[in-house]
Amino acid sequence: MYRGLQRSTTGSVAIVLLCFASLAFAGDPLPSWNDTGPKKAIIQFVEAVTKEGSRDFVPVTERIATFDNDGTLWAEQPLYTQLFFVIDRVKALAPQHPEWRTQGPFASVLKGDPRGITAGGEAGVTALLTATHSGMTTDEFSRMVSDWIATAKHPSTGQPFTAMVYQPMLELLDYLRANGFKTFIVSGGGIDFMRPWAEKVYGIPPEQVIGTSGDLKFDMKDGRLVLLKLPNIAHNDDKAGKPIGIQRHIGRRPIAAFGNSDGDLQMLQWTCYSPGLRLCVYVHHTDAEREWAYDRGSKIGALDKGLDEANLRGWTVVDMKGDWSRVFPLQ
Amino acid sequence: MYRGLQRSTTGSVAIVLLCFASLAFAGDPLPSWNDTGPKKAIIQFVEAVTKEGSRDFVPVTERIATFDNDGTLWAEQPLYTQLFFVIDRVKALAPQHPEWRTQGPFASVLKGDPRGITAGGEAGVTALLTATHSGMTTDEFSRMVSDWIATAKHPSTGQPFTAMVYQPMLELLDYLRANGFKTFIVSGGGIDFMRPWAEKVYGIPPEQVIGTSGDLKFDMKDGRLVLLKLPNIAHNDDKAGKPIGIQRHIGRRPIAAFGNSDGDLQMLQWTCYSPGLRLCVYVHHTDAEREWAYDRGSKIGALDKGLDEANLRGWTVVDMKGDWSRVFPLQ
Repeated sequence: MYRGLQRSTTGSVAIVLLCFASLAFAGDPLPSWNDTGPKKAIIQFVEAVTKEGSRDFVPVTERIATFDNDGTLWAEQPLYTQLFFVIDRVKALAPQHPEWRTQGPFASVLKGDPRGITAGGEAGVTALLTATHSGMTTDEFSRMVSDWIATAKHPSTGQPFTAMVYQPMLELLDYLRANGFKTFIVSGGGIDFMRPWAEKVYGIPPEQVIGTSGDLKFDMKDGRLVLLKLPNIAHNDDKAGKPIGIQRHIGRRPIAAFGNSDGDLQMLQWTCYSPGLRLCVYVHHTDAEREWAYDRGSKIGALDKGLDEANLRGWTVVDMKGDWSRVFPLQ
Repeated sequence: MYRGLQRSTTGSVAIVLLCFASLAFAGDPLPSWNDTGPKKAIIQFVEAVTKEGSRDFVPVTERIATFDNDGTLWAEQPLYTQLFFVIDRVKALAPQHPEWRTQGPFASVLKGDPRGITAGGEAGVTALLTATHSGMTTDEFSRMVSDWIATAKHPSTGQPFTAMVYQPMLELLDYLRANGFKTFIVSGGGIDFMRPWAEKVYGIPPEQVIGTSGDLKFDMKDGRLVLLKLPNIAHNDDKAGKPIGIQRHIGRRPIAAFGNSDGDLQMLQWTCYSPGLRLCVYVHHTDAEREWAYDRGSKIGALDKGLDEANLRGWTVVDMKGDWSRVFPLQ
């Protein structure tokens, strides 16, 4: 179905893949990208930093590429996928919480008004996240996410959420890795929500997923050692939190960064305001027919200051409508 | 000089090394280990988890090994290396702080009484760390550490601190990596103190170094974007902080863990209290002649509860005197 799902995890295969990676893309490494500016900019960048002896050469260990997730690797409309998970969890937990029938954001969810989730602002979303993302062990939460993502369907397309990933971006991830890059997710989404499926879908292992995370408690439960998920946020991986998350987890500055909203601006600045050849890319949602069209003023994934800065600094802006021949793998 | 220092970072060489890694150890992979129990236990474990089709086989992506640093990968006596760095920084900064001449831990440092550093307990150490580890950018701090470690000498041996690493552990790191393991440092030491040299000395890149870390602020300084190091601790990577740091950074449980003190006990429990074949190893400092001999009651690196639990559970305990034919690379 997807490239990501076909990836083998056995050692010998991995080594063979790595050794022949440079041969694997003898054809077009980015077949779902039209031959327009962004594709040319990406290939030109990769060729420059991987050419030994060239002025722009970057050693393998420093080839760090960071990707936002929501709206950059997969769709974020009409709501972030993680909020659909929250909705389903609230419904599942409701019988144990009769008080939710009248409590702001919980009542909206139970009445089938998903937009009510965000109506209560940050406090409402926090209450929902606390109720659904803490009070269990990391293993229990991981299983909940895995079970949910295996069966839940996107409300507009009826497809699994993992089919709502962008085919051109999957190709880009593969292309970068084939050229020695280490690819990381740097998302405002929950780190524990992304890790259970990111490896299968994107080929990105848990240790390369950076996201918003809560405090943990090392404890005993039913005679077993566990890590309990606590309600308070330890790191908010959005806006200025993105370069901070990058420093904490990676400890070096990326040489390429990919985002789609103002929440990614600081990550792109941290990447491109530094000496040497750098690549900063904004995915611009311009395709109302195959996906969604939104930017300035959108309630989710607003791209406003970021678009101005991209234009000012000559960063690469991907026009989804004009630059991608295909959006989703099943399209 | 060391294996680590000879490692090339260019892409093609790295790939060639990886492809031929399994051939590179056709001889004895652990020449500085005597043919005693620990060496046998390590090799038996590695052979079992890497043998495809065997009951204990572990896919490459899950071969995570975590190492404490102080006392496990390099010497920690008569004081943690990071405290020698603190001493030298306090001396360097003293002219700008005349008040330090009479202030508890600062006065001890300036009077040449290194043991006075720990005499004031945690509050004194925190004051020293705050004064020397915050108020600058991450890049500035990284340069300070790199400059210091290139020239500072261990007070007992007169050798660079990076020569005070354990040769058998360097061989072990290489052996595990050659068998598809990803090796991580999980240390109570400062993450920003270890990252500048861990790749050169241990072959462990910054993104695989986990340690105690402070809060950061994304800011402008002299017209450039920077991350400022703030005085407060964001994560204390010791004791129960180790499994928490592992979950945050790696997101999976290690299958092998290596430590030397009670501060590592929770990391070893988190690794070995789980189903499947696991390897938990304590390095026991028993060699007063070639290194130092200490365990229960030591002010630095005490091994007390950990030793009891290792004996109780049959974990591997390395007797440095009897199990290692060589301790330091230059010995």
